[in-house]
This record gives sequence, structure tokens and C-alpha cells, in this order.
Amino acid sequence: MTVTAAPFHVALHDRVEATGSVVCLGIDPRPEAHPSTHPSTHDHDPARIAKAVVSYYRDLLDAAAPDLACVKLQSAFFERMGIPGLVALAQLLVDARERGLPAILDAKRGDIGSTAEAYAAAYLDGGVFDADALTVHPYLGMDSLEPFVDVAQRNGRGLFLLVRTSNPGGADLQDLTIDAPRPDGARPLTLADRVADLWTDRARELGVDARGYGPLGAVVGGTVPERLVELRDRLPHAILLVPGYGAQGAGPAEVRGAFDRQGLGAIISASRSLSHRDGDDPPREAADAARSMARALREVRPRA
Amino acid sequence: MTVTAAPFHVALHDRVEATGSVVCLGIDPRPEAHPSTHPSTHDHDPARIAKAVVSYYRDLLDAAAPDLACVKLQSAFFERMGIPGLVALAQLLVDARERGLPAILDAKRGDIGSTAEAYAAAYLDGGVFDADALTVHPYLGMDSLEPFVDVAQRNGRGLFLLVRTSNPGGADLQDLTIDAPRPDGARPLTLADRVADLWTDRARELGVDARGYGPLGAVVGGTVPERLVELRDRLPHAILLVPGYGAQGAGPAEVRGAFDRQGLGAIISASRSLSHRDGDDPPREAADAARSMARALREVRPRA
Repeated sequence: MTVTAAPFHVALHDRVEATGSVVCLGIDPRPEAHPSTHPSTHDHDPARIAKAVVSYYRDLLDAAAPDLACVKLQSAFFERMGIPGLVALAQLLVDARERGLPAILDAKRGDIGSTAEAYAAAYLDGGVFDADALTVHPYLGMDSLEPFVDVAQRNGRGLFLLVRTSNPGGADLQDLTIDAPRPDGARPLTLADRVADLWTDRARELGVDARGYGPLGAVVGGTVPERLVELRDRLPHAILLVPGYGAQGAGPAEVRGAFDRQGLGAIISASRSLSHRDGDDPPREAADAARSMARALREVRPRA
Repeated sequence: MTVTAAPFHVALHDRVEATGSVVCLGIDPRPEAHPSTHPSTHDHDPARIAKAVVSYYRDLLDAAAPDLACVKLQSAFFERMGIPGLVALAQLLVDARERGLPAILDAKRGDIGSTAEAYAAAYLDGGVFDADALTVHPYLGMDSLEPFVDVAQRNGRGLFLLVRTSNPGGADLQDLTIDAPRPDGARPLTLADRVADLWTDRARELGVDARGYGPLGAVVGGTVPERLVELRDRLPHAILLVPGYGAQGAGPAEVRGAFDRQGLGAIISASRSLSHRDGDDPPREAADAARSMARALREVRPRA
């Protein structure tokens, strides 16, 4: 089951154009932080907590869907809830897609050979945790990514490779300069640059759509605006998934460099700043927050 | 529930000394490759396939435990089986530990901040997927590892950080030379070296046991013997988890550099070469194979 017959990257851009929104709702269930209208922590039964999570996010999706480009489900928070949490993950993946929202599973998987094949089969090939796109780790090298690329290409799914993350420690390895010949006066190449270049080479081999994009997206944090601009250039065929907006401190000005000249090529993810509301009607407040965020981002996006 | 009151790295070395085995049985369930004595693929009910997997590996554990240092469960293969697969994972984690075998969950998680905390809570803090140790990704930097380090330290668990993997593409990033000042004549520093050095610095801060080891282990592939020797030196406080033995081509000679001068400091993992047997009594054959592997490794391990 896919949202549409179009490949993920095409369907996502179609939806961005239709809704005018580049907002990606991050679904990071923290039952202990649920608003009092959708309580869950007074209950210690894991199955009931997971049920409350599904109910809460369904209400959010119903209210906010018109102002969302897509959703991103954070696997860690579901895994933390054990078996009922994973049932909730399967349910919310279906719920999002039934509402026309492409569903990115942020599970940051990365392994080699037949193990990578097993992860790709688990998340991009019609199983109970079937998603439209998956986040993946680069450290194990290009052959480790190939099983994911194969399945994504075959099934019209997307990948988001971690290139430059939004945390301060992202610099530890990703900003290391690597020893590579450079033209006179050129900035030294970082590890993240090298990852981006390898990914762009692979994207070219796969081919791009009419907008210039393909299935190989990338994660670049909104908290490093100057890197975002540089990596936008190095990843011309990648839709960028940009975390760090809101709770992590990035705003419209910080993420504007993520877009191409048509105002496409990036989705901006926010979780806590959209979903952790505590008024009388949190789903309505989440929808309002998503609408405001979409509007603020339209102000900074180039117009085609 | 931990195997013993001792921290993981102490309990693992105690078991290596008691059994004389450094063999880590990799549990990578491929139901389609089960021996005919433990069939599963004639059945299309996911719950029954998962049950067959649990039954098969229980028989293997019962037969082979005396010749094993520990087990390593590969999360991808369980995730691929959906909800019943994850129930099977929870069951086999308990089964291994009930048999006195430290259980490493090879899930290769890596994320930042509260998401990393959620993964650490899911796998190292008493939940249904509770393991004695977890494999983790370095690309997101040291602050991304800290939530795992905190929980591991508090609960007496272990971590295995991916440093140099066994796949050919491991070289793509891990062997890049980084731009860092080096003494005259010294070999250039690779990315894997840098990861190792950061991990060793952190291990020193945590402190080491009487054998010189701590909770921060590392994954270094057996397919790159010369790197294994170098990284053994750079990671003096890390137990090395060495994949690549058997099916991936490494033998005793390739992995001997993983051990310290006491013959400790490394466990050698094998999956297919131990568990994919197809005689009349696969558990017995797996036990024989584990015993042979343990013996072959004793031949190359230094003696205290």
C-alpha cells in the first residue's frame, strides 16, 4: 500500500504544491507529556498507554492533516513502549497514509548485506511496519546502503541519509576535514561533504524526476544554516529532511537555505512545538501551530 | 534482570575464562533457511513462523551453551517478522540469559538527545527487550552516545560502538584519512582511528576493571586483520566484538590480533557457519561447530 501510485519523492512534492505546506509533523510519543485532555500516564498498563498514544495522534492527524506535507514517526519512542508500542506504530503508519499523508519512519537503520536487506524488507516492502520512506545511517559505507536503495527504487519509496545532524556533537565526525585534493582556494572537504557527494553520485545513476529529484533524500539539521546552504548545493537531487525547527531552536530564517529556487526540495520537521500543547483542544492547537509554521515557511521559500 | 550482579564486561570475561570460549553465537533468524528438522517456511502464519524460530534457537542454545561466551541477536531479522518476530526477540533474550549467556542486541541504534534516551530505555533498562549490551552507531557524535553511556554505566550493561566494519564498503568513510597534525613519519589518522580515540577517552573517564576493561566495547571486523591489530591498540579498554568469521571469510589467523596479551578483550561472532546446519541433529551440529571454533581460537589466543 502506498499513498499514491507515484514514487514517494514525486507524491511528497505534489502534496507540498497542493497544500502549500512543507511542514512534517514529528510523531515522537512521550506519553508522560500528553496533554490533560488526552491522558495516558495515570495508566500503567502498557497496552492502554499505547492505545492512548494512538488515539491522541489520530486526533492530531485529523485536525492538522490539511496543513501538513507529511509525517515522521520516531521509532525509538514506539520501541520504548515494547510490543504495544510497536502495534501502535503499525497503526499510526496506516492512519497517516489513510489520510493521504506520506509517512516517513525515522528509525535510523544501518547495517550490511543480508541484515540491511532484512531492515529494508521490514520497513519498505509491504510488511506491518510499511512506511513511505526511511532514515538511514551512512557510517558503514555505500554497499551497506545498496539494499535500501534497491528496495526503495523498486517499490517507489524514499530514503533520508543522515548527512549533517542538528545536535552540537554532529560536528565531532561530520565536520572533520578529510584529506582530499582541492582546487586552490577551495574550502577543505568535510566528512559530511563526502557523504553528500557519494549520495549525489548514486542519485545521478538512479535518475531524477521532472523536478530534478529522486528517491535519495538527506537529513541536514536546521541548526547549522551555513552547512544547510552548502549541502543543498551538494545534494541537488535530494529532498532534505530538516530537523531542529522549534524546540531545537531553528526558525524560518535558519532553514530557508534548504529550499531550491522553486521553493521545493525540503521538508521541515517539528515535533514538540506542534504536538505538546496543553489548552482545551490540543488537536486544534496543533493544527493552528502547523498552519502558522507552514505560513512562516512560505514567507521565506522562494516562489517558482 | 542481568545475568549476574557483575557489570557486563566483567561477567563476559568471567564466562570466557570459565568456558575457554570466545565464541559469540549470532542469532540471525532466517526462517527460510531453517534445517528440515526445524521447519518453518511451509507455514505462512507469521506467529507460527516466529514460534518455530524461538523453538529452533532454544534447541541450539541448550546444545551449544557450554561452548559459547555469549550470544548476539540481530534485531533486523526479528523486525522483519513484524510483531510476532519482536515477541520472539523478547523471548530469546530471556532464554539466553536464563542459560547464563550474556545477550548482546545487535540493533545498531544511533540518534540524538531524548531519542537516544528512548532507545537506551528500550534496550538497556529493564524493558521487554532488555539486553546486556547494545551495538551503536558513531556518526552523530559523542553527545549522541552519552544517553547510552549513562544507562549502560548505571545498569551495568555494555555498548559496542561501530568502529571498523567487516564489509568492503566499510572503507568508504571509515578509512578516509582526516586532516589532523601527526608526528613525522606517523601513519595518517583515519576516521575509524578518530572514532576509536574519542571512545577511548570516554572509557578512561568511566574507569576500568581489574582486567583493564570497561563498558565501552567496539565492533571491528575480522575481515580487516591489519586494522584489527591497530584498533586493538587504540581501544585498550574496549572488548572487541569481531564479526566476519566463517561465512564472511575470516578465520583464526585473521582475528588473532583482536586479543590482548592475556587472550582476552575480544569475542568472535559467527551466525550462519554455526546455525545453518542440515544434518539429522542441527543443534548437536551447531554445538560441535561452536566447540571446534572455540578450540581453533584457543590455538591462536595468547595465554596469560
